[in-house]
Amino acid sequence: MQTLETLQERIAAAFADSHFQQEPRKLYEPICYTLNLGGKRIRPLLVLLSCDLFGGDIEKAVYPAMGLEIFHNFTLLHDDIMDKALLRRGMATVHCKWNDNTAILSGDTMFVLAYEYVAKTDASLLPEVLFLFNDTARKVCEGQQYDMDFETLPDVSIDQYMMMIRLKTAVLIACSLKLGAVIAGADPLEANIIYDFGIELGLAFQLQDDYLDAFGDTKVFGKAIGGDILTNKKTYLYLKAFQSARGDDLIRLKRLYTTPGIPADEKTSQVIELYRKLGIDEFTRKEINQHHSRASFLFKELNIPDDRKKQLRTLARRMVGRKK
Amino acid sequence: MQTLETLQERIAAAFADSHFQQEPRKLYEPICYTLNLGGKRIRPLLVLLSCDLFGGDIEKAVYPAMGLEIFHNFTLLHDDIMDKALLRRGMATVHCKWNDNTAILSGDTMFVLAYEYVAKTDASLLPEVLFLFNDTARKVCEGQQYDMDFETLPDVSIDQYMMMIRLKTAVLIACSLKLGAVIAGADPLEANIIYDFGIELGLAFQLQDDYLDAFGDTKVFGKAIGGDILTNKKTYLYLKAFQSARGDDLIRLKRLYTTPGIPADEKTSQVIELYRKLGIDEFTRKEINQHHSRASFLFKELNIPDDRKKQLRTLARRMVGRKK
Repeated sequence: MQTLETLQERIAAAFADSHFQQEPRKLYEPICYTLNLGGKRIRPLLVLLSCDLFGGDIEKAVYPAMGLEIFHNFTLLHDDIMDKALLRRGMATVHCKWNDNTAILSGDTMFVLAYEYVAKTDASLLPEVLFLFNDTARKVCEGQQYDMDFETLPDVSIDQYMMMIRLKTAVLIACSLKLGAVIAGADPLEANIIYDFGIELGLAFQLQDDYLDAFGDTKVFGKAIGGDILTNKKTYLYLKAFQSARGDDLIRLKRLYTTPGIPADEKTSQVIELYRKLGIDEFTRKEINQHHSRASFLFKELNIPDDRKKQLRTLARRMVGRKK
Repeated sequence: MQTLETLQERIAAAFADSHFQQEPRKLYEPICYTLNLGGKRIRPLLVLLSCDLFGGDIEKAVYPAMGLEIFHNFTLLHDDIMDKALLRRGMATVHCKWNDNTAILSGDTMFVLAYEYVAKTDASLLPEVLFLFNDTARKVCEGQQYDMDFETLPDVSIDQYMMMIRLKTAVLIACSLKLGAVIAGADPLEANIIYDFGIELGLAFQLQDDYLDAFGDTKVFGKAIGGDILTNKKTYLYLKAFQSARGDDLIRLKRLYTTPGIPADEKTSQVIELYRKLGIDEFTRKEINQHHSRASFLFKELNIPDDRKKQLRTLARRMVGRKK
């Protein structure tokens, strides 16, 4: 068994060893810039952890793991154009630092790179690996479309929101885990269980992201509080608040979200205060815990000695904001 | 041996039978719209022709052939955003009919669809097919970047231009032919010869496209004359004219391309007149014929009875504007 730290170092080394800089420079510079912004590299870590969990050789999973990370970064790059986002991981987004055309084309090229890395696997596994990756990539695109659709849709239900984050976020987490299992030669039933575990984990992970936007500790979280609130984003918190609020609370909530010109600090703190009053923090934690419990149940189903499961269990807990 | 017409009908039927419309509608509608715009479907036709040439079962090539056509249409969709093009095949481009975000994300989804269709091949062939497609897709992106770079580069040589159209256009023609050969189980040496044939054919095809912009018959060509001239596009004709012109001709050429406000008709007709005076039509035809001759030489190298080669030879001649 490898520790989380060892696997993280392996991924960092793999990215450091790769030379993405080629000609034409204007195409590959933004790709290097994007991949050097770092991030938590959770998806490739999940690939290696899962491969190791099923007794596979993690060296066979390193390139496909990188492929998923490159794919994830490609989706962020194109999403940032669509969302007109200025910052990504505290740095200028590619479309701001360069321009939209560069961001579109460098993104497309990263998508090809992702396929190149994912394809670096045993020929015998390629049909299954490619099917899994295609299915995942398509669903992520569909999730992003629903996310954009919801911006202008007056009534979005919590069920619709959960369906959207399943596509946009959870399937790639699930794909990462299944990919590691497939490369390790896991039993197909076990590979499907870890996929389903990944879906529940991914849902909890996204809800935790929503939660931290309002209730996170800025110092720990690393990004400013209230970004979702300021952009009127229909997160789980937002939808749950509108579903729960009655009378004066509902009027106040509507006013906070629709009145133009409220200073950012004031809007954020008042919405968070109202969220707390409505118990949205508790509702959200309950929902996170429910998905985490489902994930834990599936995790227990895996026919693997408990001591082998320690590393992945630890990472899963971290992803959903639990200490243990 | 199948006729060109039979193969064309097979491709048309395959697209007619495919149901690209799914949920979310806003994602898949632009994809259906794009794929229904038609076009000449040259790339899938080349796949089937090549597969048939090498004695393969064309039914095994239909889906991968569609994959290349979907990929080609994806590149046009994203190129149209970057070029701010208003029309494609006489209809509004996706980013005009919908918006940039829709065009970006529908394009990304088409790219996944392309991989899904290309992957519909025998598992034993998948590593080679996927390697070929990845290599092609990457080069097409690089070609598009060079094309954009050249817009603002003051001095572009004809060699640089040829390198760019090789990447942007010729490799996909070559890939189409090699893909058909690989699916037919052709000898790898033969598959490489038809790839090289495709490169020369693709170069001649793009030069013919440049030629027709100035010297085509509007009725036959189907699009207005002079689009490249009006957008100051650095085509083979433009670069050759600036290379050849001396004295007053050079001054006049520069003036036509740099003076703002010249009426479109006047600019087009005067540039074409000057091109003729400089012999650019003849230079270009000579260059086209040279690449076509190289293609023909490679085509003869193929160890296939001459009567089997008739259909592909006919299509190649049509692509470079020759009657026979």
